[in-house]
Amino acid sequence: MAKDKGLTPQSEDFNEWYNEVVLKADLVDYGPVRGTMVIKPYGYALWEGLQRELDRRFKETGHHNAYFPLFIPMSFFQKEAEHVEGFAPELAVVTHAGGEELEEPLAVRPTSETIIGHMWASWIKSYRDLPQLLNQWNSVVRWELRTKLFLRTSEFLWQEGHTAHATQEEAEEETRRMLDIYATVLREYAAVPGWEGRKTESEKFAGAEYTLTYEAMMRDGKALQSCTSHYFGQKFSRAFEIKFQDKDLQTKYAYTTSWGFSTRAIGAIVMTHGDDKGLILPPKLAPIQVVVVPIYKEDTRAKVLAAAEGLAQALKAAGIRVHLDDRDQYSPGFKFNEWELKGVPFRLELGPRDVDAQTAVLASRLGGKETVPMEEIAPTLADSLEAFHQALYQRALGFRDAHTWKVDTYEDFKAKVQEGFVKAFHCGEAECEREIKAETTATTRCIPLDEPEDKGSCIRCGKPSAYGKRILFAKAY
Amino acid sequence: MAKDKGLTPQSEDFNEWYNEVVLKADLVDYGPVRGTMVIKPYGYALWEGLQRELDRRFKETGHHNAYFPLFIPMSFFQKEAEHVEGFAPELAVVTHAGGEELEEPLAVRPTSETIIGHMWASWIKSYRDLPQLLNQWNSVVRWELRTKLFLRTSEFLWQEGHTAHATQEEAEEETRRMLDIYATVLREYAAVPGWEGRKTESEKFAGAEYTLTYEAMMRDGKALQSCTSHYFGQKFSRAFEIKFQDKDLQTKYAYTTSWGFSTRAIGAIVMTHGDDKGLILPPKLAPIQVVVVPIYKEDTRAKVLAAAEGLAQALKAAGIRVHLDDRDQYSPGFKFNEWELKGVPFRLELGPRDVDAQTAVLASRLGGKETVPMEEIAPTLADSLEAFHQALYQRALGFRDAHTWKVDTYEDFKAKVQEGFVKAFHCGEAECEREIKAETTATTRCIPLDEPEDKGSCIRCGKPSAYGKRILFAKAY
Repeated sequence: MAKDKGLTPQSEDFNEWYNEVVLKADLVDYGPVRGTMVIKPYGYALWEGLQRELDRRFKETGHHNAYFPLFIPMSFFQKEAEHVEGFAPELAVVTHAGGEELEEPLAVRPTSETIIGHMWASWIKSYRDLPQLLNQWNSVVRWELRTKLFLRTSEFLWQEGHTAHATQEEAEEETRRMLDIYATVLREYAAVPGWEGRKTESEKFAGAEYTLTYEAMMRDGKALQSCTSHYFGQKFSRAFEIKFQDKDLQTKYAYTTSWGFSTRAIGAIVMTHGDDKGLILPPKLAPIQVVVVPIYKEDTRAKVLAAAEGLAQALKAAGIRVHLDDRDQYSPGFKFNEWELKGVPFRLELGPRDVDAQTAVLASRLGGKETVPMEEIAPTLADSLEAFHQALYQRALGFRDAHTWKVDTYEDFKAKVQEGFVKAFHCGEAECEREIKAETTATTRCIPLDEPEDKGSCIRCGKPSAYGKRILFAKAY
Repeated sequence: MAKDKGLTPQSEDFNEWYNEVVLKADLVDYGPVRGTMVIKPYGYALWEGLQRELDRRFKETGHHNAYFPLFIPMSFFQKEAEHVEGFAPELAVVTHAGGEELEEPLAVRPTSETIIGHMWASWIKSYRDLPQLLNQWNSVVRWELRTKLFLRTSEFLWQEGHTAHATQEEAEEETRRMLDIYATVLREYAAVPGWEGRKTESEKFAGAEYTLTYEAMMRDGKALQSCTSHYFGQKFSRAFEIKFQDKDLQTKYAYTTSWGFSTRAIGAIVMTHGDDKGLILPPKLAPIQVVVVPIYKEDTRAKVLAAAEGLAQALKAAGIRVHLDDRDQYSPGFKFNEWELKGVPFRLELGPRDVDAQTAVLASRLGGKETVPMEEIAPTLADSLEAFHQALYQRALGFRDAHTWKVDTYEDFKAKVQEGFVKAFHCGEAECEREIKAETTATTRCIPLDEPEDKGSCIRCGKPSAYGKRILFAKAY
């Protein structure tokens, strides 16, 4: 089947399968500039679904959208030492504009902590100006050497939330609240299971006190960091002079956070659910939830198309995202393959005998077909979509748990980490993490929030565990 | 009143009034880089209101959102001669990225015709691939020397629609359809009246066959081009080789269009409706439609606040965007001024005697106050907001019509064009337009679509009119 569409099987070459499926399913294309992508309508509709759910939750939790400029003076990056070290090598720089050389080169934003910090310094004067709960939907540029569509491109779309608070407690609560919102949307809409946890010091965001993450497992056993939420403490507020007069009349530095969710999540959806036939899209985000494919010959064409249109109308009226594929130039078999490749959850086949019997054939992208009475389709399809979501999530969760191992010897570690995630003890030393990476290509993914407390010795060097629990290792995108 | 808030009266210095009001009302701030702006939450919420209405109509008319890269190879601009002439002087250019000098410098997109044309050349093969109906929400960069918040900044937010069609007729229908959608949203949501028309050759978009525009009148009598819709014919398809095989098996060039609506529309709203007290926001877009201001002393605080919260809840439940201003540190008078400055359509004042009588005082930003029974407020406020919208639109329309004159002598032209719009005959020659601009600073705004046919002599040079009707002149932003 995969061969028919020219899709390389996952088991043969997962990377090749991925590149083929995102292009052939019309999610994305390569842009003319090295490392850039064009997000096509079918891919962008997935992003709009994620945006809708995230934006609603941001607003429900008191955040407001705003927009900060694309261009940031290079000097801003110098103000926070770790931040500049992390981002300077990836900056794209505007040196000329309006036909002249600029006095100070401008960075194209890789992330907006610096420019928002600069503005906050003038906006925030009193505790009454806090909290600042801002978000923006935009694109950012990070010049990457090794690029991969959706996962790592020179420019990508995301949202970046930025908040400032009067107290550490509030800022830490915010950091956790936003991770939970991300996790909810990833689980309940994208059907992508994952581990919530804290990054080790070596893996945290450049300039953060700590970083929270959601680590999902792709079908090749590798990890994908699907979003992050950072607690900055007073690092950025000291660098940018974000100060306020508190109730006690003392001048204090604010506590800040930032959190981001990007089009990388589309890559997570593709690699969590897809199979050798193509994409499998989670129904709550699928641009098309059900496709109606009429099956006719010349003499039954009018009758079948009329019934198919009636069915599509009824589904649309029931709030279902339906598409009627009435293209004359393609055979039903060709259409079945194409919509399977594009990951549409359900297909309704409708032939002349179905019309006579007032039935249709409902085929699930997860397998299985059944003949259903026409009148029952619209009233029951919402439930079928919910069941599809649950099945998809459980399937991914089962896969993840079957590819996650607790290991206690470095031999086991090296073997298992090639196939999935391992939970092991670690000494917490950056040098030891680097050695593990050099020897296995695996990295620490996170210190899982819900891992029970436990003691043990570092999987590699034998020193006492630094985290009071096992932590998660994997090879990662 | 204006003096109390430090707002310069409009009659004294309209430009100064504008700059003060957009900053003090918290719509926007200056960014750290010359000519850039930060759109603050209150301003961004206006943009989200416009986006919601536009995006819905784009989708209803079959368009899909997509995303094309920010960076465009400089060589792309050379392909369409008029386009490069129009945009090259305003480009911002990335010359370095990832720590190295780039082989080919990259333009930060000023508009996306070239990169979309490039992609279409590979996507479009057959008439079955047409029409292409795409839109994107993004930011663009045009390095302007004279900048003004919202109206002309180095970077601004907009949407740019791009479509490709098999026939000229379809493409021209599209150009007109999108102008009509813009006009509907400007009239019915922003309450901004305007003239729909075609630009003269000198004023059209660089590379277009023709440009349609919506020209609104600001309260200083100057024109603001509020959006544009361009018909390109085959200019861009020939430059970028956008070809398709038609039903008759012939290879043909596609017909393309583009259309854009930007954050400049926020400036139009401010300058169409605002007065010496500040903004007046159209209710359908106002982030806050009604503000509840409780009036209390220490002994009545609890009673009044409880009633105010109940009122705000009832309004929210009725679908009204309501804000309860329960800040203790400010007096009611201070709050009245602030919400007037911010242009909130209605204010509800609630004091202890109101609570006893189960009434509140409803004050309109357009003037007038009335005492209303508490129980009637939530059920009737939607109607009051609709009436407010109508009054605002009629007020602006009346102002526009009172400041528009038909003139037939150049003396009258020169006098009247300093105060508003004039309708006059013109010979159609670019050189004559330049002379008029040099002598009066006025330009042709458009050839109005609904102006009746008529003949006459050019207002300046006396040659026969070129357009078969009077055209519109004004000084413009």
